[in-house]
Amino acid sequence: MAPISNGRLFFNEIPTGLPEPGKTTVYDTSETIDLDETSLGGGFLVKTLVLSIDPYQRGKMRDPNEQSYSAPYIIGEPLYNYGVGVVLRSEHPGIKPGTHLYGTMPFQQYFIRNESEKFTVLQDRIVGDEHNLPWSAYVGVCGMPGQTAYHGWKEFSKAKQGEIAFVTAGAGPVGSMVIQLAKRDGLKVIASAGSEDKVAFLRKIGTDVAFNYKTEKTLDVLQKEGPIDVFWDGVGGETLEAAIEAAARGARFIECGMISAYNGGVPYHVKNLTYIMSKELKISGFVVSSLHAKYLDEFYRQIPPMVARGELLYTEDIASGLENAGQAILDVQTGRNKGKSVVVVAQD
Amino acid sequence: MAPISNGRLFFNEIPTGLPEPGKTTVYDTSETIDLDETSLGGGFLVKTLVLSIDPYQRGKMRDPNEQSYSAPYIIGEPLYNYGVGVVLRSEHPGIKPGTHLYGTMPFQQYFIRNESEKFTVLQDRIVGDEHNLPWSAYVGVCGMPGQTAYHGWKEFSKAKQGEIAFVTAGAGPVGSMVIQLAKRDGLKVIASAGSEDKVAFLRKIGTDVAFNYKTEKTLDVLQKEGPIDVFWDGVGGETLEAAIEAAARGARFIECGMISAYNGGVPYHVKNLTYIMSKELKISGFVVSSLHAKYLDEFYRQIPPMVARGELLYTEDIASGLENAGQAILDVQTGRNKGKSVVVVAQD
Repeated sequence: MAPISNGRLFFNEIPTGLPEPGKTTVYDTSETIDLDETSLGGGFLVKTLVLSIDPYQRGKMRDPNEQSYSAPYIIGEPLYNYGVGVVLRSEHPGIKPGTHLYGTMPFQQYFIRNESEKFTVLQDRIVGDEHNLPWSAYVGVCGMPGQTAYHGWKEFSKAKQGEIAFVTAGAGPVGSMVIQLAKRDGLKVIASAGSEDKVAFLRKIGTDVAFNYKTEKTLDVLQKEGPIDVFWDGVGGETLEAAIEAAARGARFIECGMISAYNGGVPYHVKNLTYIMSKELKISGFVVSSLHAKYLDEFYRQIPPMVARGELLYTEDIASGLENAGQAILDVQTGRNKGKSVVVVAQD
Repeated sequence: MAPISNGRLFFNEIPTGLPEPGKTTVYDTSETIDLDETSLGGGFLVKTLVLSIDPYQRGKMRDPNEQSYSAPYIIGEPLYNYGVGVVLRSEHPGIKPGTHLYGTMPFQQYFIRNESEKFTVLQDRIVGDEHNLPWSAYVGVCGMPGQTAYHGWKEFSKAKQGEIAFVTAGAGPVGSMVIQLAKRDGLKVIASAGSEDKVAFLRKIGTDVAFNYKTEKTLDVLQKEGPIDVFWDGVGGETLEAAIEAAARGARFIECGMISAYNGGVPYHVKNLTYIMSKELKISGFVVSSLHAKYLDEFYRQIPPMVARGELLYTEDIASGLENAGQAILDVQTGRNKGKSVVVVAQD
């Protein structure tokens, strides 16, 4: 077969504010690949099927001298994130052609790897095709965001029936899973999102008090519907302050993201931190990978079957083609996406 | 016996800044009491021996409409705090004359109560006089401050040998106990205090890196000697920010006081809260009374004997006479006290 184009989305420049397509990220088609002939060097050739777009990627678009929990993207190289791909050819004894892999993948149509331990073989986790979910589900509700919600809720919520939870970014893939787990544990759930469509989705998945934080003041809602026993924080800043203000004594705060502080500017001044002591708050920051050893097997056993049976609902916002990934990245930072953002790079 | 004066320290006025003796608090000798004749109504008459002066008292000098974990002082009534007193007379079946009680007592030389369950009978806890400690020790190292340190360290530090702890207000009764518990658990201890005398005491009790936060920058010390795994916070504000900056991944923050925010003004803007998530910090606010059920018996069994044997060191700053309690309260807020502040109201 003749060489074909191997499209890539580069990290081009460190943004000061929002990541702009064509500036922060650039789509490039100059590389070609011969899928039949290219040398594998003992590894395996993967065709990228879906790539996840997540808020935390903004943190990787930083000056490499700034320390953080996740390595920075390198200028002039493709971005990368969680994805699902199918193995086209393999010289690796542990990886068979036709296998579907989940793991960190470059924003690139085809790529070669030889470290099999960095990927999850989805066929081993989902036992045949019985769940029959689209591959995109495995980067969302059944992937890292779903795992973030599941691990964090199990480890830190200490939820008791009848308590009240407040979930931010409730229509996102993490928040919507948290809401459904909280409802299954018998809590009253307050959740916020940034549009009327999203608020409708919050209601659909069982949220007791769903509101649009752009038209209603979070603190007012919490003071009316709280006090809150569990706070799932994907936002930080002024929302964190409101949650502290409305927290019940001994409330648990689960800090899984602070998107309000990701895109530059002076961070919001949270003025009521003394309540951490006087209200005996328990605040847990976490990164999902630290909890895989404890919860990942349980997650794969329980969650994909529940999603397949329709017992856990999710929404996706699908962009088709890697050339549209830069816009999808921007949309996730501004909240313009409706549901879990996924780029479908190719059909299976 | 003829009636004698029964001196009292009143709460006179809500302070906007520091609590001023003669203004915020007023000493009054207008009341008299006949110790032999006064009616007990089935209760018991107590002579106050020692009263504890603690930073958290400032929080009680507030507008009663502001909610907090601890009830506000009432204008025109005596202040109150932990103390030790001796029972002079009793009509209560459970309380014998000559018994020493520990508990919340009014800033008043003599008082009558009938709720025995609100006091700890020290003779039941310390088994005779074998420990032979002064009563003042039972409001400090063997009282609420010691219990705060003990309960909080046991519950939240998750300390492992070889880790690094940073203890603020290290020369105070809470901090100095925390330092000694941390050293016993095999940690390297960094601790701060606000004078050279106090720094000398930090060294005496085994602190590895003792510094004066007024002459050295906390962040500089922590960046040189950290990263820190456990942070004992009695200060908040800029010190909390420095600790977050220098925290190791997964560090435990124990929030037991925020004196930097007690005396008015705009609270310090802690600008690096996003690290709570990315460094996976675990922040626990607590109030000692919530942990008594779990740790108080163990505390009384272990700590007074260790103090009596000289295995746990402590210092006191003793004011003599209830008329000097107002100044002692102010000194604790400005850090002018040297060691645990206690007012000795009367000899046994």
